[in-house]
Amino acid sequence: MDLAACIRDIPDFPKKGILFKDLTTLFQNPGAFHEAVDAMYARVKGLQIDTIVAIESRGFILGAPLAYQLNAGFVPVRKPGKLPGATIRVEYDLEYGTNILEIHTDAIQAGERVLVVDDLLATGGSAKAAIELVERLNAKVVGVAFLVELLALRGMSKLGDYNAFSIIQY
Amino acid sequence: MDLAACIRDIPDFPKKGILFKDLTTLFQNPGAFHEAVDAMYARVKGLQIDTIVAIESRGFILGAPLAYQLNAGFVPVRKPGKLPGATIRVEYDLEYGTNILEIHTDAIQAGERVLVVDDLLATGGSAKAAIELVERLNAKVVGVAFLVELLALRGMSKLGDYNAFSIIQY
Repeated sequence: MDLAACIRDIPDFPKKGILFKDLTTLFQNPGAFHEAVDAMYARVKGLQIDTIVAIESRGFILGAPLAYQLNAGFVPVRKPGKLPGATIRVEYDLEYGTNILEIHTDAIQAGERVLVVDDLLATGGSAKAAIELVERLNAKVVGVAFLVELLALRGMSKLGDYNAFSIIQY
Repeated sequence: MDLAACIRDIPDFPKKGILFKDLTTLFQNPGAFHEAVDAMYARVKGLQIDTIVAIESRGFILGAPLAYQLNAGFVPVRKPGKLPGATIRVEYDLEYGTNILEIHTDAIQAGERVLVVDDLLATGGSAKAAIELVERLNAKVVGVAFLVELLALRGMSKLGDYNAFSIIQY
């Protein structure tokens, strides 16, 4: 199946001048959703992953079935104030302003092998923040998985040492 | 496995006086997460489901692996402004104030058989709103699945005609 053909472009979202890649049209297609998860699974099944760390909230849509398929735990990385327990946080720069991501301090045990998952790699800021959160909990990032990568934004250059990959590139 | 024992109570979250059921400790436990998805799957596998409609954002964590297992499509119901395409919306009352949920108008085709999924049933307001969105798109809600139900809030009384169920009750 041509997965890229299942993704639609939405002009000027979330703000003027941005051409947004809308993956919901892929997720709502049963065959495309299944194939997308399978393609990511095939790339990581040999990595002996203990825990999937998925980035709020579209990362959950791919990270959760991967965790299920891998018999791994599922851990969300979320925006401030969403996680109810004790957290650590990382602040990182966006094009305009900053963003914060949090993880529960007891979500991962030291030494665990972690796969970071998100739907789309743009500049790589949130993935890099998620990696930092995992490493501050003394766990090991053994891979970083994206369904889609926007090549022009060169986010992969931030993730060079982390076995990062994407299934669909634009 | 005792799934209920994997859920922890967080006092005074998100505000004073509320005892929050934190399911992240269940999700991060590989065996518990797998068993939770399997328990929900066992209840719905005979329903000939075309599409999972999951409620932002913890509903994604259970709805996405269910969609994968059922070979169904995955459709998110989200808060205002998160979905990039044309949407319809439902506004519903909370204890204080109101909330809004949206769905893409082209996310579901008329006549499709839909399972609505969320992590936890409290008063039932958001599940009822999701049902209304599905019905306004002329699709059929054949079930409503929750992992956890707070019996004292009597949310199930709002969902009597919709084959609703939960796996863990408090």
